[in-house]
Amino acid sequence: MSDTEQEQELGITESKAHNTGEWYAEVVQKAGLADYAPMGGFIVCRPRGYALWERLQNYLDGWFKEEGAQNAYFPMMIPESYLERESDIVEGFDPEVAWVTHGGHEELEERLAIRPTSESIITPYMAEWTRSHRDLPLKLNQWCSVVRWEATDTKPFIRTKEFLWQEGHTAHETEQEAWDETMTRLDQYHRLYEEVLAIPGLKGRKPEHDKFPGADTTTTVEAMLPDGKSLQACTSHYLGTGFADAYDLTYRAEDEQEKVCHTTSWGLSWRALGGLIMTHSDDQGLVLPPKLAPEQVVVVPIWQEETREEVLEYAADLAAELDEAGVRVELDDREERNPGFKYNEWELKGVPVRIEVGPNEVEDGEATLVHRPDGENEVADRDALVEATEDALDSVYAKLYAAAEENLEEHVHEAHGRDEILGTIGRHGGYVKTGWCGDEACEDEIKEQISAEIVMLPLDDDEEPIHDTCGVCGDDAAETAYFAKNY
Amino acid sequence: MSDTEQEQELGITESKAHNTGEWYAEVVQKAGLADYAPMGGFIVCRPRGYALWERLQNYLDGWFKEEGAQNAYFPMMIPESYLERESDIVEGFDPEVAWVTHGGHEELEERLAIRPTSESIITPYMAEWTRSHRDLPLKLNQWCSVVRWEATDTKPFIRTKEFLWQEGHTAHETEQEAWDETMTRLDQYHRLYEEVLAIPGLKGRKPEHDKFPGADTTTTVEAMLPDGKSLQACTSHYLGTGFADAYDLTYRAEDEQEKVCHTTSWGLSWRALGGLIMTHSDDQGLVLPPKLAPEQVVVVPIWQEETREEVLEYAADLAAELDEAGVRVELDDREERNPGFKYNEWELKGVPVRIEVGPNEVEDGEATLVHRPDGENEVADRDALVEATEDALDSVYAKLYAAAEENLEEHVHEAHGRDEILGTIGRHGGYVKTGWCGDEACEDEIKEQISAEIVMLPLDDDEEPIHDTCGVCGDDAAETAYFAKNY
Repeated sequence: MSDTEQEQELGITESKAHNTGEWYAEVVQKAGLADYAPMGGFIVCRPRGYALWERLQNYLDGWFKEEGAQNAYFPMMIPESYLERESDIVEGFDPEVAWVTHGGHEELEERLAIRPTSESIITPYMAEWTRSHRDLPLKLNQWCSVVRWEATDTKPFIRTKEFLWQEGHTAHETEQEAWDETMTRLDQYHRLYEEVLAIPGLKGRKPEHDKFPGADTTTTVEAMLPDGKSLQACTSHYLGTGFADAYDLTYRAEDEQEKVCHTTSWGLSWRALGGLIMTHSDDQGLVLPPKLAPEQVVVVPIWQEETREEVLEYAADLAAELDEAGVRVELDDREERNPGFKYNEWELKGVPVRIEVGPNEVEDGEATLVHRPDGENEVADRDALVEATEDALDSVYAKLYAAAEENLEEHVHEAHGRDEILGTIGRHGGYVKTGWCGDEACEDEIKEQISAEIVMLPLDDDEEPIHDTCGVCGDDAAETAYFAKNY
Repeated sequence: MSDTEQEQELGITESKAHNTGEWYAEVVQKAGLADYAPMGGFIVCRPRGYALWERLQNYLDGWFKEEGAQNAYFPMMIPESYLERESDIVEGFDPEVAWVTHGGHEELEERLAIRPTSESIITPYMAEWTRSHRDLPLKLNQWCSVVRWEATDTKPFIRTKEFLWQEGHTAHETEQEAWDETMTRLDQYHRLYEEVLAIPGLKGRKPEHDKFPGADTTTTVEAMLPDGKSLQACTSHYLGTGFADAYDLTYRAEDEQEKVCHTTSWGLSWRALGGLIMTHSDDQGLVLPPKLAPEQVVVVPIWQEETREEVLEYAADLAAELDEAGVRVELDDREERNPGFKYNEWELKGVPVRIEVGPNEVEDGEATLVHRPDGENEVADRDALVEATEDALDSVYAKLYAAAEENLEEHVHEAHGRDEILGTIGRHGGYVKTGWCGDEACEDEIKEQISAEIVMLPLDDDEEPIHDTCGVCGDDAAETAYFAKNY
């Protein structure tokens, strides 16, 4: 294939603004992040996609451990009878469970669920390992995949039947401790979105009717994607004592009484990568924030036959210095590709900063730095290159975050009254803040009309509702609700 | 519960020498490594077990990447029709496959295998991603769990129906490159066993009839456990062109011809942890080599009421210094436990070095270091503590390795003739080296009598067989075979 043919093949043909869904699928595939699996709703996570997941894991796993969580691994299969011990769980997940019925040539006596989530296999073991208050808090986490047989609207990373995630499970003596844990984890997820993914998130809780099955409270970070839809970016649940009751998770307190634990669970999946791709990428392909990028910088030397040696030497030397300084740098000295092809390819792959060096740069002792998000370029002195590169990476992060923040701000509106709510979401997408009486029926009315729902209620309980009355029915408002279409 | 009661509960009651199986199960459970799952043959890997796996992963993953492997993630389910495209795979694994037949309330049109190994889902994607020789070699790896429904002889870590492992899959232009890859990975596994797990391993290949289904050559590292049984510690396969043919994995060579790739696959599972536990642990519990130990050193302060403050301060200071120096150190200053209890508990958990400090040590500016494997103790100057600790850790590693090496050497015997082979294995266990004609029937004869089989053939093809004739049938020997009972 010629350069031109390959370039055409590399290019993104769909428009983010006009065809978000098709554009997203194209970026995912052409940037080498994922492919479709033979079974509908499953994906293959390719090396470049998995490298993002690994970096995300490193951050989160470190923070989890700092706050006392220990990793473990529980079986991927759960006996049906275990699932049934917590009635909300079985009702909530039964329609989505994949069942193993045969092992080898034999039919199993009891069918086994592929875990859709692991409370029902982890909590009984936490019960075995917990005797006295000295064993508490108990904080477990596992990195694994889970399966939820959701047949509709599957989309790489954002909704797949099997997905990679982590699930944390903790047990505590008191409600307060369990609630604090729920918030600690939510804050860690929020931090991941802000600091690593460069995506501002809104912390809130889900309405009663949309909680995790069996939970007392489900909290969420919601991210506003550029198309005006909200992404539930993670969840952190205060489970109360329901699971502990169902699975006999009790402890001997200091006063020698046997008491029931308060538990939490919290999870973040590779859906985060979906949010990342949707938020920052553009019609040239992927755009990655520097902390997550497998290559933070690519050095592209530009030479003619007579300048070949000096340019390549200069470029290699410069790349080595960046590498030494801890920058993840790639030197693209391929002979068989021209610079234009290389630019396009690395833009498609989302490398945050490109450094160009040609004969002029060599002569002047300089290098040209180009920012991926907006093409801004600057000339840096060779002597100050490391600093200039680090500044450029910081600057790329700041630009990505600022753009995502602007997108969020543009997508928060107030509205009151059925028509105004429908009209505002219809025109602008995004969030509509309104007063809410607390009745699910009011959500249903909006949902039926435009598939928007209450994606979150602000976390601060002390705050007065934004309106005195419910934006839908006009009864007294109990709280403020954020309506939005969502993924 | 009183200290005494808890101490009794902590203590290992079975004898490694006399009741290896029961002793092993007790160490695994009491050291907090794993528990039995509700479904037979499955385990729950507890945090202390998982921490070992994580450290092992870190070493191996780093080495894999140094040699060009990239991590990815493929679906845990494989359509039956994909499995069937390589006939050896389906024949070899069909009896052990767990089948998903239902998703939610619906029966699936095609049943899905939980992956027993992933050649049949990964190779088709390697085929999609490989066009020209420029795309080769392609080196993928995934960390995941697989399921093999083996009903008998399950044992925590060593043989479980679901197990954690990594599986590498690579594609190359030539047989030589693929073979080199096979050896590179075998050497990395061998290095892991030697340097990290302190277990000497023998590199060899499996006889034809015991190869991985569809493989051209299966290589192995075999470890001799103290009970005289061999553990297949990993495998690395040169797959020839069979899988590439079955899944259309071809490439356009430099001469523009379409050619078939040569592929490899290689895997190591949490079975390695089983070998580790079996090899070094003793009747006091777990013994860990320093590189893998979650805590390398525990500092136990010993105080009376009047010396409490100075001893605790001294101990904390010392622990802080070790931590600073990069030693993984735990200060056990629990008030509610006496030093004897602490010693027993940390011995059970396998911490390589214990540092005791009491009033005498404080006064003399010293600390007492005790080696876990043999209780050897030495007094170190406070000023030279970091160095002394590092030396002690090196010394513990050396002792563990030396003991395992001695065990291996004691368990290699030569024998020739049916009765001598049977008698030698019967008396000493271990390996019996003998000439072998290459006929499976000769292995069957030995297997039927004492369940020993050919676990490996030495790798060096140039080497002459140890005997001119087969140790079983007396025909001409084609090679040297190692017979042993195995796990």
